[in-house]
Amino acid sequence: MRLYYVIRSVGAIAVCIGLTMLLPLAFSVYYDDGSTQPLVQSMLIVLGIGLPVLLFTRRFDQPYMNHRNAMTIVTIGWIAATLIGALPFFLAGTFGTFTDCVFESISGFSTTGSSVLTDIECVPKGILMWRSLTHWLGGMGIIVLSLAILPFLGLGGMQLYRAEAPGPTPDKLTPRIRDTASALWIIYLVFTLVMIILLMFGGMDLFDSICHTFGTLATGGFSTKNLSIAYYNSAYIDAVITIFMLLAGINFSLHYQLLFGKIKPVFSDPELRFFLLVVAFLILVTAFVLYQTTYPGLSQSFRYAAFQVSSIITTTGYVTADFEIWPFLSQSILLFCMFLGASAGSTGGGMKCMRIMLLLKHIYLELFRIIHPRAVTQLKFGKRLVTEDIIRGVWGFFIMYIGLFLLSSFVLTALGIDLVTSFSAVAACIGNVGPGLGSVGPTNNYAHLPVVAKWMLSICMLLGRLEIYTVIILFVPEFWRK
Amino acid sequence: MRLYYVIRSVGAIAVCIGLTMLLPLAFSVYYDDGSTQPLVQSMLIVLGIGLPVLLFTRRFDQPYMNHRNAMTIVTIGWIAATLIGALPFFLAGTFGTFTDCVFESISGFSTTGSSVLTDIECVPKGILMWRSLTHWLGGMGIIVLSLAILPFLGLGGMQLYRAEAPGPTPDKLTPRIRDTASALWIIYLVFTLVMIILLMFGGMDLFDSICHTFGTLATGGFSTKNLSIAYYNSAYIDAVITIFMLLAGINFSLHYQLLFGKIKPVFSDPELRFFLLVVAFLILVTAFVLYQTTYPGLSQSFRYAAFQVSSIITTTGYVTADFEIWPFLSQSILLFCMFLGASAGSTGGGMKCMRIMLLLKHIYLELFRIIHPRAVTQLKFGKRLVTEDIIRGVWGFFIMYIGLFLLSSFVLTALGIDLVTSFSAVAACIGNVGPGLGSVGPTNNYAHLPVVAKWMLSICMLLGRLEIYTVIILFVPEFWRK
Repeated sequence: MRLYYVIRSVGAIAVCIGLTMLLPLAFSVYYDDGSTQPLVQSMLIVLGIGLPVLLFTRRFDQPYMNHRNAMTIVTIGWIAATLIGALPFFLAGTFGTFTDCVFESISGFSTTGSSVLTDIECVPKGILMWRSLTHWLGGMGIIVLSLAILPFLGLGGMQLYRAEAPGPTPDKLTPRIRDTASALWIIYLVFTLVMIILLMFGGMDLFDSICHTFGTLATGGFSTKNLSIAYYNSAYIDAVITIFMLLAGINFSLHYQLLFGKIKPVFSDPELRFFLLVVAFLILVTAFVLYQTTYPGLSQSFRYAAFQVSSIITTTGYVTADFEIWPFLSQSILLFCMFLGASAGSTGGGMKCMRIMLLLKHIYLELFRIIHPRAVTQLKFGKRLVTEDIIRGVWGFFIMYIGLFLLSSFVLTALGIDLVTSFSAVAACIGNVGPGLGSVGPTNNYAHLPVVAKWMLSICMLLGRLEIYTVIILFVPEFWRK
Repeated sequence: MRLYYVIRSVGAIAVCIGLTMLLPLAFSVYYDDGSTQPLVQSMLIVLGIGLPVLLFTRRFDQPYMNHRNAMTIVTIGWIAATLIGALPFFLAGTFGTFTDCVFESISGFSTTGSSVLTDIECVPKGILMWRSLTHWLGGMGIIVLSLAILPFLGLGGMQLYRAEAPGPTPDKLTPRIRDTASALWIIYLVFTLVMIILLMFGGMDLFDSICHTFGTLATGGFSTKNLSIAYYNSAYIDAVITIFMLLAGINFSLHYQLLFGKIKPVFSDPELRFFLLVVAFLILVTAFVLYQTTYPGLSQSFRYAAFQVSSIITTTGYVTADFEIWPFLSQSILLFCMFLGASAGSTGGGMKCMRIMLLLKHIYLELFRIIHPRAVTQLKFGKRLVTEDIIRGVWGFFIMYIGLFLLSSFVLTALGIDLVTSFSAVAACIGNVGPGLGSVGPTNNYAHLPVVAKWMLSICMLLGRLEIYTVIILFVPEFWRK
């Protein structure tokens, strides 16, 4: 009875999300911004459906969680969360159309941050808080998905982290997910509290601090200001957000290990080293280019370069400078960052550094094999041995990523959208980044795109966030056979 | 004494190429176009160096041809051919700079067709004939490389064709290469003669017929007219060239089989089916889009769509319409064709259909494996079993292709070239296509690019043509160790 488990899980998700609506509700009452009614209505509808579902499916608790159930629940659960997320937008009349509500919600839960809002600052505060909260909840979902669920499903090479996640290692999937989740969520919560306080130190009010913290730690990118972080024009706030974006782009199991004083294994982690090295290199190159062409001062060039490279490579998407007027090299570096993305096991999107590292190692090994056809070779990742199924999973992921990118870009160009906008919009949505180039650049938004493009990009955001495999597998007929 | 074999091979290549200079020389004398002197000088220099080298290295004939020797000879030989090819351009003063001479020659021998000539029609006929001849010679080289050398070196998945090429199967590489080459070159010659006659039927003179035949069968794309094939504005000539471009984009071992009446195995060849299906599909989509937006008539839309899709997917690069003013979908389709390319074992470039098919099959198999983790699965390509080393070679190739594309695009954008031009120029050069988009589009050329960009693109053309592996391997330190 797979369906019952799915329904029960969706019910549980609905109740959890419904309860979190109390936070935006509180702000909406405090500011008396007119969004109290739609938020209360949304909460009643969500809990009104979720609670009975939970009650009537009680006997299906602790289901035997096999691969198929898990994959179905992840995809259906994420879609359900998205639809729930769209409800307050719809009832508050924030957007003209249902499509826009879903787009904004999927952009929130997938921690993408692409927006169809043309004037953010005139939207009621309660709704803006809800919008940022979808990021934060999505971020929680991603951490669990990438560190507790995907390694066990053996999808996209994430099985590399099978023995990595903290907590005990029981045979059943469900208790393991709970243990991993609670351990990692504590770190997520601590980061959240620290960042809110640090932002308030910089003069941001509580509301904006919470929203921007949600957007940062989930590597989302929704802001409460039309100018995004550029609004504050503060080196301190830029620095705080840059640091926390980078923290959010690091594997959360490393944060967990650090919490328990395991400093050495953390800094010998190959992915962390690669990630920090790439970030440092790209920031330096960008800063140099900007100093030569765009900004008069070296420190100014470095500040904007550091923020923007960190924002795009961690797939957050916050903006402090209009990088569309930057030189073409900086633009192509940022476009490359959209594909590369952050670390596996972080809240960031993109292909993930771990996968690119494995692909590069594969090439070197392949060249070595051509020179020494009879040598016995073995791919290693730090101290871990990379088995054939891991590298196969990574290859499959890479090819599907590129395939989805091409297919979606074709759809967008077919709608008459120019090449730079089409390609960068798709890259930004599959990679869960947010802003692209061209007419979806840092000073623009996604509002003007045709309806079909918005749905296509919504699919990209969902597939990108769920590591493609999880969704695509549901469309393989073989999956549904007994 | 590996070096002696390399020197002897270069000597042999020099003598062969030197002798072929008689053809442009004949036309130059006939037209009395002023290029007789530089052509005679070039011939004397090339033969003057090549013949003594051949004589003094006689005792190294029939060398024991191991993997290392073969790969070194291929790369060094191709570079030598390019430098020889640049000599007539240099001596005739066709181009201002040495860089431009090398660019045009590498574009010729790699059958790319990217040109730095701004006014083709004012160049002496002898030089134009030489320019087209470099295509034809490059095409000969490619056929042998892809069907006789690469399968045995086990590079980039070409080992799939190990048992495929015609002729006997001895242990030694050298006699095999000779047998395969002579068999396939007969087909190449027959195609050449037939096409020259067909073009002359369409009213083209002998000179232009020969040049355009060379450009077509090698999937090169150098024309003798500034407007390329659009100059003739003839449906008959368009049709002839379209058909021969497609023939040149098909694996030449299939043509060989067809010659011996083996019709069934040819039409059950999975790559041929895939290639023709993709071509037909993309032509229909493009024709439909063009009919809706650009041209008034259906037959006109079909004619331009068929020509341009065939031209780009076979990586020829001839032009009958300015596809930069076509709708964005058509442009992105053509950009996609630049990457896909034609069949393996053809004179076409790009990634090759065979590789993309294997990657797609891999994804399906990977999804199947996730659903049935314990099932024993095996990748098949037609009736052939795809071994692990083949698929590893294909993956490695794919990743290196994308890596080279990104790296080169960065270099071009760093020189201040816009994104569309940079990305499409690199795609067109690695894929050995010719025209790109933006400022290197169908009505433009590569003359205005900075010197560094021209050298970068020259490297791309060479690497793309030699299937990346063959060149890259020479830069692995391991390769040079005993």
